[in-house]
Amino acid sequence: MSENLSQLKSRMAKIARLGEAAALLEWDLQTYMPPGAVAARAEQSATLGEFVHELFTAEEIGALLAKSEADTAGTDADSDDARLLRALRRDYDRAIKLPADLVAEFARHTALAQDIWQRARAASDFAAFAPALEKMLDLTRRQAEALGYKDHIYEALLDIYEPGARQADVAAMFAEMKPALISLTQAIAASAHPVDDRLLHGDFPIEKQKALTLRAVQAIGYDLQRGRQDEAPHPFCTSFSRDDVRITTRFDPKFLSQALYASMHEAGHGLYEQGFPPEYEATPLGHAASLGIHESQSRLWENLVGRSRAFSTFLFPLLQETFPDAFAHVAPEAYYRAINKVAPSFIRVEADEVTYNLHILLRFELECDLLTGKLAVSDLPAAWNAKMQAYLGITPPNDAEGVLQDVHWSGGLIGYFPTYSIGNLVSGQLWHAIGQALPERDAQVARGEFAPLLGWLRENVHRYGRKYLPAELIQKATGEPLTSRYYMDYLTAKYRDIYQL
Amino acid sequence: MSENLSQLKSRMAKIARLGEAAALLEWDLQTYMPPGAVAARAEQSATLGEFVHELFTAEEIGALLAKSEADTAGTDADSDDARLLRALRRDYDRAIKLPADLVAEFARHTALAQDIWQRARAASDFAAFAPALEKMLDLTRRQAEALGYKDHIYEALLDIYEPGARQADVAAMFAEMKPALISLTQAIAASAHPVDDRLLHGDFPIEKQKALTLRAVQAIGYDLQRGRQDEAPHPFCTSFSRDDVRITTRFDPKFLSQALYASMHEAGHGLYEQGFPPEYEATPLGHAASLGIHESQSRLWENLVGRSRAFSTFLFPLLQETFPDAFAHVAPEAYYRAINKVAPSFIRVEADEVTYNLHILLRFELECDLLTGKLAVSDLPAAWNAKMQAYLGITPPNDAEGVLQDVHWSGGLIGYFPTYSIGNLVSGQLWHAIGQALPERDAQVARGEFAPLLGWLRENVHRYGRKYLPAELIQKATGEPLTSRYYMDYLTAKYRDIYQL
Repeated sequence: MSENLSQLKSRMAKIARLGEAAALLEWDLQTYMPPGAVAARAEQSATLGEFVHELFTAEEIGALLAKSEADTAGTDADSDDARLLRALRRDYDRAIKLPADLVAEFARHTALAQDIWQRARAASDFAAFAPALEKMLDLTRRQAEALGYKDHIYEALLDIYEPGARQADVAAMFAEMKPALISLTQAIAASAHPVDDRLLHGDFPIEKQKALTLRAVQAIGYDLQRGRQDEAPHPFCTSFSRDDVRITTRFDPKFLSQALYASMHEAGHGLYEQGFPPEYEATPLGHAASLGIHESQSRLWENLVGRSRAFSTFLFPLLQETFPDAFAHVAPEAYYRAINKVAPSFIRVEADEVTYNLHILLRFELECDLLTGKLAVSDLPAAWNAKMQAYLGITPPNDAEGVLQDVHWSGGLIGYFPTYSIGNLVSGQLWHAIGQALPERDAQVARGEFAPLLGWLRENVHRYGRKYLPAELIQKATGEPLTSRYYMDYLTAKYRDIYQL
Repeated sequence: MSENLSQLKSRMAKIARLGEAAALLEWDLQTYMPPGAVAARAEQSATLGEFVHELFTAEEIGALLAKSEADTAGTDADSDDARLLRALRRDYDRAIKLPADLVAEFARHTALAQDIWQRARAASDFAAFAPALEKMLDLTRRQAEALGYKDHIYEALLDIYEPGARQADVAAMFAEMKPALISLTQAIAASAHPVDDRLLHGDFPIEKQKALTLRAVQAIGYDLQRGRQDEAPHPFCTSFSRDDVRITTRFDPKFLSQALYASMHEAGHGLYEQGFPPEYEATPLGHAASLGIHESQSRLWENLVGRSRAFSTFLFPLLQETFPDAFAHVAPEAYYRAINKVAPSFIRVEADEVTYNLHILLRFELECDLLTGKLAVSDLPAAWNAKMQAYLGITPPNDAEGVLQDVHWSGGLIGYFPTYSIGNLVSGQLWHAIGQALPERDAQVARGEFAPLLGWLRENVHRYGRKYLPAELIQKATGEPLTSRYYMDYLTAKYRDIYQL
């Protein structure tokens, strides 16, 4: 390794460790922090964030990066070092392209806008949020212009979360899925064999749910020596090293699915991060390839595994043992059907597998139109409701359950939503490849043997961390570019069976 | 405020916020961190520590400090700004006096020595620890020489933890207490009215203990909106702002006193930090005046309040309500006697109020002799055992329960022990002053009215943070310099009564 690269890595490691400390501040904020500490925590996070930014955008980093690139020019382009420099170049260029005053204004407005949004949502008053959203769109456009793009302003934003993804590709893929998703949703609604999910509602004491979710996530391979589960108002996964990957969940004592499948989802994220190679620790490669790839892991474990007939077979004895009153006289098939009930609903985070992607398509379309000026902010609630009616056949009774439901737009995260659907598509494509590689997969899952499945993901996804761009990783792992085909095939087959279509 | 001072304060605030993030890393390490994360956490803490040190010892800080001192020269020496500059001058001079290579070697050796100590203690093998202690003493002497001192090498170390304290004064005060403590201990052992504490041993389910300790610490004023209690192997208090002051405790399901009085102790520390004025937040004044003053607050609430007859009167109904089986037929006086049982024992952290200070005197004397070379490391275990026999009348059966019991010497904390006894003395002196100011104090405590007492401490101790040196604060709060008189009077009167001497 050249002396320049060695120095660069050493600096990056220090910056990474500071970033890990910042992540702990955030985890603590969401889990254990006393309520009175909000203002102090904001100062701590802002200060650490400023230092990390200042250290990372220092001219010395740029110089070391350029010299390291020169030193490694002509060497194996697929080596870890070459890939690390490529990833770092992307990060560094993006960081220095953004003017400091724009970054500061963005941060200030985000704090303000989130507060305004919370109150607007509580009052279901879109007009109260509209000026803040208008300004957020302006700042986001300025951000996109500073970052640069080739074909569409959306590209610059999407690229932050899903490196290399192009707006036109995503738009085409989504447009292709849309009619199939709408007609599947409609067919399910008209089915003569509706799903009854009442058995998931009842008395499920939280302590017992905790024990059950821990058994489930440990069974699939989530390592509690290098992780833990806590409670938080909104479930998430975070990490401060591959050896400290934490998940959170939320328990509803009256509804079993809430915590159980949220835990499977977060454990899916957690398995990914616990699977990064130790040599990537505290380097630019010791991260997820993208948010979409991250989401593919969570959705794979939550849905393609967790909500499968095979997993339900494995889980059922544990369920009966934990909640004998509720499940002693229930057939496993009834449970499997209950956890896969499909019904159009207003809130994205509560949506089932089939309708979920329609929620995302709607947001993606609206974001594109808002950014390009095709849609005015004042017309947004009507546009939202019209799309909800067209795609899902329902109209939100108010803006709180409609256009104001998500934190993303007030949080400055415009361009983020598509990664959720990309994650679903990737999960389907990986699932298909796994089925080819492991013909016994479903039988193994039903027996609680998750090692082959996890092993495949470790080998084909996790161990690469951020070495490859998402498109490269998908090609490498599945032998073809990203397509919606496998995910749509999966959905169609699964729900035709359940709803006897 | 001068522009220089304003800039200096802004820099110090950022450094303080980084320090708070570092403290969260440590809290998490002791409470929730998964075991696999040890190595990553060490990196995170080391990195943040290095940045804080680097930022604090930067030449610009020295220049801003000197200019700010010049700007404020001739202004009110008792103003917050003047006192802040005095505190900062102490910190800065100490930080730059220590050569970077010594700091690094010290940190490295501490990590190593703690590991060696843990294994040596487990094997009760002092010889295995001796070389590491030898080197720690060498490094400590180099540290003391770099820091400088007037009369005694110990002074340089003591000054780190107890600013302004002089070795000769401490030695004289301890020498004065020693015969009285020894004779009180002996008289208690010979008493015809021994204390029976069997009622504290039994079945005390942890969940109930948790609820009881929380009621107790909230009753005395510990604010759970700005704090919380968690479990940790060794109870401690830490803070990441005056609005985020956390305590930890340890529960023994078979022994009630363990968690209850540890919680009162840590809540005493916590009340102090929650009482710092908001305007000192993230400044050099937003800290304790010293470890001794900090310990005075914890010992005051643990012992002078917590183990008093008045507090037992307040607590007893809660105890009976929480543990009806254990306390339904117990008299409050029997409980009061039980929690005040005195008996020489080997382990400092388990010692009662009377013998505790003898454990400290012993360590202080040994530390002085080790540092000046009067005592060789190889002779330390014998010296320890001889003093244990002379002061407490018992000889440890092995080194694990003797010279190897404390973490401090392997942790590089030579010169720290006296602050525990100083804390006791200060608590006694404050208690006397409070008695003068609040003649109804004990009746109020018995009724669960803690506001007047806490109010006095807020007004006379807490609100000053680190504005005054310990000696100044004690003089201001009690009207006289630190003396052992009040604490010894308190001990003597209390235990003559209990043991009918």
